[in-house]
Amino acid sequence: LEYLRFPSISTQSEHLKDMLACANWLKELFTTLGMKAELHETPGNPVVVAKNEHKRGRPTLLIYGHYDVQPPDPLEEWTSKPFEPTIRDGRIYARGATDNKGQTLAHILGAGELLKDGDLPVNLTFLLEGEEEIGSSNLEAFLQKHRENLACDIIVISDTMMAADYWPTIAYGLRGIASLEVIVRGPERDLHSGIFGGAVANPITAVSRLIASLHDEKGHVRIEGFYDKVRPLQDWEREATSKLPIKENDFLALAGSPILWGEEGYNTFERVGARPTAEVNGIGGGYQGEGTKTVLPKEAFAKFTFRLVPDQTPEEIQALAEAHFKKYCPPGVTIEVRHGHGGLPYFVDPTSKYSVAAKKALKDTFGQEPALMREGGSIPILQQFKTILGADALLVAFASPDCQIHSPNENMPIRNFETGIQVHKALLKELAKCQ
Amino acid sequence: LEYLRFPSISTQSEHLKDMLACANWLKELFTTLGMKAELHETPGNPVVVAKNEHKRGRPTLLIYGHYDVQPPDPLEEWTSKPFEPTIRDGRIYARGATDNKGQTLAHILGAGELLKDGDLPVNLTFLLEGEEEIGSSNLEAFLQKHRENLACDIIVISDTMMAADYWPTIAYGLRGIASLEVIVRGPERDLHSGIFGGAVANPITAVSRLIASLHDEKGHVRIEGFYDKVRPLQDWEREATSKLPIKENDFLALAGSPILWGEEGYNTFERVGARPTAEVNGIGGGYQGEGTKTVLPKEAFAKFTFRLVPDQTPEEIQALAEAHFKKYCPPGVTIEVRHGHGGLPYFVDPTSKYSVAAKKALKDTFGQEPALMREGGSIPILQQFKTILGADALLVAFASPDCQIHSPNENMPIRNFETGIQVHKALLKELAKCQ
Repeated sequence: LEYLRFPSISTQSEHLKDMLACANWLKELFTTLGMKAELHETPGNPVVVAKNEHKRGRPTLLIYGHYDVQPPDPLEEWTSKPFEPTIRDGRIYARGATDNKGQTLAHILGAGELLKDGDLPVNLTFLLEGEEEIGSSNLEAFLQKHRENLACDIIVISDTMMAADYWPTIAYGLRGIASLEVIVRGPERDLHSGIFGGAVANPITAVSRLIASLHDEKGHVRIEGFYDKVRPLQDWEREATSKLPIKENDFLALAGSPILWGEEGYNTFERVGARPTAEVNGIGGGYQGEGTKTVLPKEAFAKFTFRLVPDQTPEEIQALAEAHFKKYCPPGVTIEVRHGHGGLPYFVDPTSKYSVAAKKALKDTFGQEPALMREGGSIPILQQFKTILGADALLVAFASPDCQIHSPNENMPIRNFETGIQVHKALLKELAKCQ
Repeated sequence: LEYLRFPSISTQSEHLKDMLACANWLKELFTTLGMKAELHETPGNPVVVAKNEHKRGRPTLLIYGHYDVQPPDPLEEWTSKPFEPTIRDGRIYARGATDNKGQTLAHILGAGELLKDGDLPVNLTFLLEGEEEIGSSNLEAFLQKHRENLACDIIVISDTMMAADYWPTIAYGLRGIASLEVIVRGPERDLHSGIFGGAVANPITAVSRLIASLHDEKGHVRIEGFYDKVRPLQDWEREATSKLPIKENDFLALAGSPILWGEEGYNTFERVGARPTAEVNGIGGGYQGEGTKTVLPKEAFAKFTFRLVPDQTPEEIQALAEAHFKKYCPPGVTIEVRHGHGGLPYFVDPTSKYSVAAKKALKDTFGQEPALMREGGSIPILQQFKTILGADALLVAFASPDCQIHSPNENMPIRNFETGIQVHKALLKELAKCQ
């Protein structure tokens, strides 16, 4: 609860002091538990690194997490105050209870218990940053600078969600991302739609035709070559997906959508985890106020992100999408395509020795086989871990789907938290065997 | 120049005093010229009505105009100040120089000259309102209340544009309008486009597909029944259009568009004047700020206006468009269609005795046959004149295409203004013959 009381909101500069206080609190906690902890300055918020005594001949595990949190707005929707943690019905309510203070603290306390018993069987490094919610912009340079100090065999991150409430879950894949903006321009200035309408192409119509050209009636993306690099789902993946403890109706309830709808030939979980998408995130043009303005606007724009799966790359998809938009751009307007940020898809072999160790630890703790799933979101930092530290990451979730991450009334079930501590201990035991 | 100095901006309440002062100035002008003038209160700005002595057995002509003007913004683009009229290169620069103070004043001064000579051969009524630029919302009730006092055989309005600089022009048709807004809704709240993207329909994609469904590749509107009531262009109209003193390249320069583009089978002037359109005036949905936000938005909207030609009606086109949108709405979203304002298209028989009189007056004054054209815009008040007063309106333009109506550096060529005075005198002489 002490940890949750820090309003460590990284996006608001008035909380700089709280960030520092929170990082120092972590450093003291690690020290108290018997680890050697350091605060590292960065151009942004400090990074906390803590280690047990590393010994030769043991595998090295790095646990990554973050102590910064999302802003709590809208405040009026919270039942109890976001930085005054409150326990109700077996759950701890507070901003950060799940994302990511709670999930991280389970690991820290697990390590503490092992150390107290004199029994921590691997080389353990904690890396806790304070800028995850604002894009981890200083982490890559930090990894480069401290790559030897942070060298490891495997990384564990608990910043994802269980497939269902209190269901052991390993995410073995995440989608990548490629972003793109299209600006369509027509006349030099907004025109009167009466005086000119019918004789001049309308940029909103043009950008809409481009968006409509992206998908066929069955939800397949029509960009030429879009699926060429997509690794087909393997049989074991289809099987793992079919065994997920969440059904389409559960997902529909989470989405709050009229119906589920997507690419023909795939179920909801395959569509979200294993299939790439072409999504419009924003559109604008002309008059958006109340009532009517008879304008034929000079331009319109649309913002796109494509979610990628192995072995698509952002650069390839951006190039294919640009070619598509230019090919299908209607007459009478000009088009500009701007490439935005990108991130590679992520995929960890769930039969590697480390994955097998994680699965066994989860099974031993929960008493049931963990669900294996691909998640639809993206954690770009994983690619940097892979490139700079040369290590894969295991994504082991302690959060249930209704923990309200990034929303009002964020919470962590105490049962999940306590089990998380046990998972950490079991995980270290199993990883110790991976020589 | 005195008239142009009043900042009679009807949309800005701080100019209420200026509106009243301007209306009083008009009343005094009419009185000085020998007419009987009255200010009539309305719930908004006053209406000025002025008459010569009406006598039995003469046709009655009503001249409609407005003394309110558009705001002058952006001020920094004016070479001289908008309410300090300045003469440069034979043009008077000021807000309202053309729209509509200049064009109206030519009629007033023409009537004054005739009265000075004791020779005004028709019953003449001036009706000048102060709310044209904000929708003439009080004019209909005013016409109803004063229908006997305003009874007339024909109306003349000079609030349109010549087909080319200093080219006598009669607009014999205007398009009608039907407005409609479409709101497409998907999930109950904005969703994370990674976690949900691919399994939930995107409202922006849906609204874009609806817009794309409106036209085929050749620019024809695909709404079923859309063209059923469209009166085909008559041979004399095609001929009149082919004789217009403006060419496609002139129109392109006015539009400032990359190219002209529209419905196959029609030229630019037919597309604008004689063909109906389906135009998007505004669109919005999702994230419109800088950069990227990976949101799958809960809704998107588009605002449409359809320009109508005889014998389409707003109600019919709104119903057809609504049916079209509902039929083509993609799965996974719900659609709401809101009907907005509408106005009937306008068409005056250019072979009526009054039209023939106006054509002769223009030919006698300019020394050449006037151009006959249909304009693409809409003047909804014309329909009220027709319904309440039972009179057609002749649209006789004194403004050249480069007079910058509604824009910075609005101006009136002095030659046009002086010829306008002569046109008024010739027009009254010709109308006097229409018994």
